[in-house]
Amino acid sequence: MTADAPLDESGILARITPALPQGRDVELGPGDDAAVVRLVSPRLVITTDTLTEGHDFLLARTTPEQIGAKAAVQNLADVAAMGARPQAVVSAVSAPRGTDPSVLKGIARGLAQRCARYGASVVGGDLGAADALSITITAVGALPEGQEPSVRSGARPGDVLAVGSDQLGRSAAGLALILKGDPTRLEADEEARALMTWQNSPDPDLTLGWTAAIGEAAPAPGSGEAEGAAPATAMMDLSDGLVRDGGRIARASGVVLDVDPTALEGDVEALLSAAALLGAGSEAAWEWVLHCAEEHAMLATFPGPGVPSGFRAIGSVRARRDGEEPAIMLGGRPVAGEGFDHFG
Amino acid sequence: MTADAPLDESGILARITPALPQGRDVELGPGDDAAVVRLVSPRLVITTDTLTEGHDFLLARTTPEQIGAKAAVQNLADVAAMGARPQAVVSAVSAPRGTDPSVLKGIARGLAQRCARYGASVVGGDLGAADALSITITAVGALPEGQEPSVRSGARPGDVLAVGSDQLGRSAAGLALILKGDPTRLEADEEARALMTWQNSPDPDLTLGWTAAIGEAAPAPGSGEAEGAAPATAMMDLSDGLVRDGGRIARASGVVLDVDPTALEGDVEALLSAAALLGAGSEAAWEWVLHCAEEHAMLATFPGPGVPSGFRAIGSVRARRDGEEPAIMLGGRPVAGEGFDHFG
Repeated sequence: MTADAPLDESGILARITPALPQGRDVELGPGDDAAVVRLVSPRLVITTDTLTEGHDFLLARTTPEQIGAKAAVQNLADVAAMGARPQAVVSAVSAPRGTDPSVLKGIARGLAQRCARYGASVVGGDLGAADALSITITAVGALPEGQEPSVRSGARPGDVLAVGSDQLGRSAAGLALILKGDPTRLEADEEARALMTWQNSPDPDLTLGWTAAIGEAAPAPGSGEAEGAAPATAMMDLSDGLVRDGGRIARASGVVLDVDPTALEGDVEALLSAAALLGAGSEAAWEWVLHCAEEHAMLATFPGPGVPSGFRAIGSVRARRDGEEPAIMLGGRPVAGEGFDHFG
Repeated sequence: MTADAPLDESGILARITPALPQGRDVELGPGDDAAVVRLVSPRLVITTDTLTEGHDFLLARTTPEQIGAKAAVQNLADVAAMGARPQAVVSAVSAPRGTDPSVLKGIARGLAQRCARYGASVVGGDLGAADALSITITAVGALPEGQEPSVRSGARPGDVLAVGSDQLGRSAAGLALILKGDPTRLEADEEARALMTWQNSPDPDLTLGWTAAIGEAAPAPGSGEAEGAAPATAMMDLSDGLVRDGGRIARASGVVLDVDPTALEGDVEALLSAAALLGAGSEAAWEWVLHCAEEHAMLATFPGPGVPSGFRAIGSVRARRDGEEPAIMLGGRPVAGEGFDHFG
């Protein structure tokens, strides 16, 4: 319940707009037919993605702020995964007439917070009527002149496979808890709450995308620090799970990615108590770690041996053998199953 | 009915993507995390808008091609109205699982055709599940260095008010026919069919946006041609009707727009037979002409006396008198009613 009365489109936008982050690169913000943003170069990077109530989130099990944050992250991650810093987003929200304006303001707040953290401006929006709540974000950035986009097809035999996250599987574990767990019991469990929060608004370090794309400078000789790291040869964000997304890099690059299972044992172990809450064991935790959609951490290959800080090595890239198809493997063996198909 | 079987997301995208227009400015098209497009300058112009089944279109009274075309036009028009040529779009389509792939391909075809006509590439898409069909387009272009965006706030007393269309009111007339007309009778009426087609996929000349922004060069002296025209001082596209959108220019510019009713008599007359099909008269036709949403023609002010070809003068801009509010008037009198509120 709230004191907010239903408003018309312009009234709602007038209340939301002032809270949106606007960088100095914004020449013209919301309110005209389109916004004008000065990019760091003319090489636009652009992506779009939608979240729909009942399909991508459940209003009763998330918050408007989390919806806005998740919509932001999944799009900012796509720009970051090309090696570009996101500079701006526009959002199109559809909602049933009579939707409490506090829901719309909450979505805008979550969106604005995540964008502001990464220096991206929210420069425009559209609010329309629909039977179900949905939000479509388009995020843009730009690649500096001379910098190649970090595509999926650049992985080379001998590269190190690495992930920009110290814990995989959280979004999947959180989703399982939301869908199958006993709400009262989960509410009392701090770890379960954290996993459900991660599912509702994943929070990987997206800066790793645009830093990995240019590599890390080697430290001064004799400084005692770890060696520098070359730029990523291939990169994407984990949208549909390590196995499915890794398979995409493998196919695009024509190589085999071999994930080292010992590198993921810690990830699995950390999810065992969540699995136990559902009466499940390490098999469920392995499933979450290998097939976790909506993680949005960076998955990348590097020439090695070092990987940039924030990344950790989880496997290696090798050439295909005679007649072998490009694929992702786990400890040299094929992995059953692929990730999530949004329309299957 | 069609031979297309339901497919998964990647299968559908694989069938749609090859038909999408890709200009030479596209460095990286669909298929990776994000697309890369070389804009004509780093000054990005960006806008987004959604069409939702049951709210913005009725599947039974339109075609997938028209849905795609309309979604394209309403976004391309917003970029054009800033004075920029649209260079690229991304589209996010949500559809019920099991939607016939021919519907999705039809939407893509309509989108692709309109984009191709204006030289805009379709560089990315998202396909997700929802209970209702919807499409959100984001369109981008860029403003050449040194060119001011054509905003709503630039109209000055003495300017000529002009519209980039030789017939206003078609979308509104078409909508009235779709909602209230007798389908059998309408089908037999060529004029009615044309108006319904215009409502389902309006087709204004969007090039007028980016040509009006730079003005028309004066012809060589003695050539006998009409004089040149200065750049637009204010511009927007007609999304919500002449009165509502004109009111926006008036308020943003702090002026009064006075529409000359005699300039619109031809528009009204041309819609009288459509009105008669609904048992209505000139009052309905005036309503359509003054309040027609989704027309997407350019509405602009020019220093005058000439306006660029493709535009026609429909009124003038004057200063406010003592205590007078900014407003749009018709023949010096206030106009009742405003246009369409998408969320009211």
